[in-house]
Amino acid sequence: MPRLLLVSSSRVHPTSFLEHCRDAITEHFSGCAEVAFIPYALADHDHYESIVQAAFAPIGIPIRSIHHAANPVSAIESAQGIFTGGGNTFRLLKTLYDLKLMKRLRDQVQRADIPYMGSSAGTNLAGPTIRTTNDMPIVEPPSFEALNLVPFQINPHYQDADPDSTHQGETRAQRLEEYLEENESPVVAIREGSWLQVENGCCQLCGTTGMVLFRRGQPAQEMGPSADLSFLMD
Amino acid sequence: MPRLLLVSSSRVHPTSFLEHCRDAITEHFSGCAEVAFIPYALADHDHYESIVQAAFAPIGIPIRSIHHAANPVSAIESAQGIFTGGGNTFRLLKTLYDLKLMKRLRDQVQRADIPYMGSSAGTNLAGPTIRTTNDMPIVEPPSFEALNLVPFQINPHYQDADPDSTHQGETRAQRLEEYLEENESPVVAIREGSWLQVENGCCQLCGTTGMVLFRRGQPAQEMGPSADLSFLMD
Repeated sequence: MPRLLLVSSSRVHPTSFLEHCRDAITEHFSGCAEVAFIPYALADHDHYESIVQAAFAPIGIPIRSIHHAANPVSAIESAQGIFTGGGNTFRLLKTLYDLKLMKRLRDQVQRADIPYMGSSAGTNLAGPTIRTTNDMPIVEPPSFEALNLVPFQINPHYQDADPDSTHQGETRAQRLEEYLEENESPVVAIREGSWLQVENGCCQLCGTTGMVLFRRGQPAQEMGPSADLSFLMD
Repeated sequence: MPRLLLVSSSRVHPTSFLEHCRDAITEHFSGCAEVAFIPYALADHDHYESIVQAAFAPIGIPIRSIHHAANPVSAIESAQGIFTGGGNTFRLLKTLYDLKLMKRLRDQVQRADIPYMGSSAGTNLAGPTIRTTNDMPIVEPPSFEALNLVPFQINPHYQDADPDSTHQGETRAQRLEEYLEENESPVVAIREGSWLQVENGCCQLCGTTGMVLFRRGQPAQEMGPSADLSFLMD
């Protein structure tokens, strides 16, 4: 059964990159001599790796980005822990398909029990599809199918509607209701500052900011910071 | 050569549906006994048609949504004018592909010189691809390729960054810069209250709110409300 740490956003005002969930990261990757980093959601992989290395330095876990590997498949297959960073979800997914990494990644997390952490786009990747990403479709992946490590969709960076706004674009809640017009899976919409921990088939909301659960035919439901979401794991 | 009226958004605070560009619509469809409406960006086609009929009533042009037609291809082929409404761009594009309407629609506008109007998702449809839509990918179209009626991408509902926001999601400008990391086509980002008029191979920005032009390797460029964009038509 997968062990997952799924973070809404790597940056939470006013703290530094991944600082707000550092204790959870430390616990999640305890025992890992190194964590493999998947950098493909951003364009500059070297720079992205250096940011993540700096964020993991206080934890004492070395980070190695898989873009250095001559064979990224082998890098995933030998990983003790995996972190997929945020950026553009379409770019991330297309690159993973192009490199034939999707099945290997899923096997490592689902069967080999390797701890997986995602942030933003890396969190979207853990759901059945990327249909609830906030990102712009800047490239065209061969499929929207994702890793399906949890049986619900995730919407990171969830934002409540601004009652003072005169902008006529859809609110996030309206977008997610449109998703439910076309799809059955529930959506766990986690605000910045929140994350999900999945272990032993249970799912726990963590952090300080809470979430909103969207389900077809039901009103949107606010869930407090420590909600038990295991009922969504069936 | 196509005759296009490409509106950023149908609603502009505080005016009613399509009220802000009513004169332009009147001129664009002058001589049309009826305009065919493409409602597929929203789920409720009957309701959507009634809203559009009410908005076109002061102009005196009857609206008929193509979802009533036993054969929507024929409805497009016999149309004197076409309006594609906003909503979700992925849903719109998937439905048009599923109904085998994309080529017919393009032929009608590109070759038969039928005036085309789009709003929001219907405006995205006029570009080469939907890669600069703001919408959530709630369904998976067989391709992101769109009508390619203009040789540049359009980003409707363009929003300037809010300097006071602590939200860490990407700004619109950051998203469009990410698009340019992966693609060559320039992006015409039109604010709510603006629209494009294309005729005789020329392209004119209209409305009161201006736009921003994004091009690879160049700084984002603010363009005033009446800018001549014909240089982008080559």
